[in-house]
Amino acid sequence: MPDMIFGVNAVSEALEAGRKISRILVEPAPGSRLITIIEMANARQVPVERVDRARLDAVSRGQVHQGVIAYAASRAYFTLGDLLEVPRERGETPLFVVLDGIEDPHNLGAVLRTVEAVGGHGVIIRERRAVGLTPAAIKAAAGAAEYVAVTRVVNIARAMDELKKSGVWLAGIDMAGPDAYTAIDYTAPTAIIIGGEGGGLGHLVRRRCDILVHIPMRGKITSLNASVAAGVVLYEALRQRTGADLARPSRRPRPSQAS
Amino acid sequence: MPDMIFGVNAVSEALEAGRKISRILVEPAPGSRLITIIEMANARQVPVERVDRARLDAVSRGQVHQGVIAYAASRAYFTLGDLLEVPRERGETPLFVVLDGIEDPHNLGAVLRTVEAVGGHGVIIRERRAVGLTPAAIKAAAGAAEYVAVTRVVNIARAMDELKKSGVWLAGIDMAGPDAYTAIDYTAPTAIIIGGEGGGLGHLVRRRCDILVHIPMRGKITSLNASVAAGVVLYEALRQRTGADLARPSRRPRPSQAS
Repeated sequence: MPDMIFGVNAVSEALEAGRKISRILVEPAPGSRLITIIEMANARQVPVERVDRARLDAVSRGQVHQGVIAYAASRAYFTLGDLLEVPRERGETPLFVVLDGIEDPHNLGAVLRTVEAVGGHGVIIRERRAVGLTPAAIKAAAGAAEYVAVTRVVNIARAMDELKKSGVWLAGIDMAGPDAYTAIDYTAPTAIIIGGEGGGLGHLVRRRCDILVHIPMRGKITSLNASVAAGVVLYEALRQRTGADLARPSRRPRPSQAS
Repeated sequence: MPDMIFGVNAVSEALEAGRKISRILVEPAPGSRLITIIEMANARQVPVERVDRARLDAVSRGQVHQGVIAYAASRAYFTLGDLLEVPRERGETPLFVVLDGIEDPHNLGAVLRTVEAVGGHGVIIRERRAVGLTPAAIKAAAGAAEYVAVTRVVNIARAMDELKKSGVWLAGIDMAGPDAYTAIDYTAPTAIIIGGEGGGLGHLVRRRCDILVHIPMRGKITSLNASVAAGVVLYEALRQRTGADLARPSRRPRPSQAS
C-alpha cells in the first residue's frame, strides 16, 4: 500500500530526498509554494493532478493537507543491522533514540524531526501498542522521515542488548533516575531510551539501561510530553558534542529599550 | 460556556488544583484510577454520573477520554498585568514564553506542560490565527493548564513592549539569529519568543526582540516542532538557573555489560 504524504513541507522534502512518488494531487489555484512543488515534480517526471479542495479533504480524511497530497512508495523500515551501520558509514559517534511505546503520531513525527536536527543516526520503535510510520507521523516529521533511519522491532529489550553489544551506552529517561540528564557524558556512543505517553519505561527495558536519569521537574506535574523530553535530552547531547562554542553563555542582557 | 476536560490525568489535576467543576461523567465499570477520581469528586461534593462509553464518545466528539469527562467553569485568561505579578509574588526571576501564532492544540498543551515543569511564570498567546485554551489544548497540557498563567492578547508586539518596560529581556528564537540559544544568559528576567508552526516569528515581533538566537540544526530540515523548540530553550534556561549541579557531566559510561 502506498503512503500518502500531506502538506507543503512534507511533500517538498520527499521530492528533494528523491523518494519514489507515483503522483501528486494539487489544489486548482496553487500559491507560490505549491508552484515550486509542481516545478520540482515536473523536473522529476512525477504526474501532477489538479483536484478540488473537497477531493483533497476526502483523500486526507480531514488531516491538514495545505492543498497538496503525494502518493509515495511505501517506506521500508531499516533492519537493526543496517541502523547500526549508519554512524559507521558517516564516521560519527552513534546517537540513537529508542521509543518504548509512543502511541501518538505527532510525538513520533516530532522525535524524528529532532533526531534529524541534531544529526542523530536512527530511531528504534516497538511493533505492538505503538505508532509506526503512518501518514500522520510522516507529516508531523515535516520531512525528517525521509532522512532518519527507523527500525521497528518486536522486542525492545532484545534490541537494546544488540545496541549494547555494539558498544552503545543505554541511557534511560526515568522519573526515578538518581541523576539529572545533564550528568551523562554524551560524547560516548549513546542510545537514549524514552517511555511512552502513558506509563514511562517498561520494567524489562528499565533493567537493561546502563544508567537511569531524570529530567528535573520544578512544578507540580510529573512528566513532559514525550517528544519534548526527547528534544531536551538530544540537545544536551548536541551541546556536549559540539563543545565550547555552544556551551558557554556569553551574551548578557542589554539595558531595556522600551520607549 | 463551560470547558470540558477529558482523560484521567487532566481531570485528576483539575480536581487537585481546586478548579471549579460542576459534574463528572464516568464509564460504568471504572478501573482503579477512575475510582480514585470518583473518591476525589465525592470529597469535593462534585456530582458523578455513570454513563456508557457511547455517550462519552459522543460528548468528547472522538477525543480520547479514557472513561472520564469533567465539566469545568470556563477558565479565565490572566490579564497581562496579573501575569507580570506572578514572578513578583513568588519572589523569582521572571521566565515567560510568548507564542507568536501556535495553531496546534497539541503544541500549545506541550508548551504549557514544559513551562510548568521548569517553574516558568506564564505564557502569552495571540488572539487571532492561534489556538487558545481549548479542551484539546488543556488535555495535551496534562494538568499544567491548571497551574500556568496564560494571557491572550490582540497585539503580541505591544505585549512585548510591556514586558520590556517591566525589565524583561526578549529573546527571539529565529533561524537567522546569529548566536546559538545557549549564548543567552537566562539568569536575567527573560521572555522566550517562539514563532508558529508555519512561518516562524512575524516581522514586527522579530524587530521587538532584544536578541535573536537560533537552535542549531545539523541535518537537512530547517526547523523543530514548536513545542520541542520551546522545551530545548526552557531547559537550557533551567540548566543555567540551577547552576553547577545540573551543568557538569560527571557520569562516564561503564563498560558494556552485554551477555
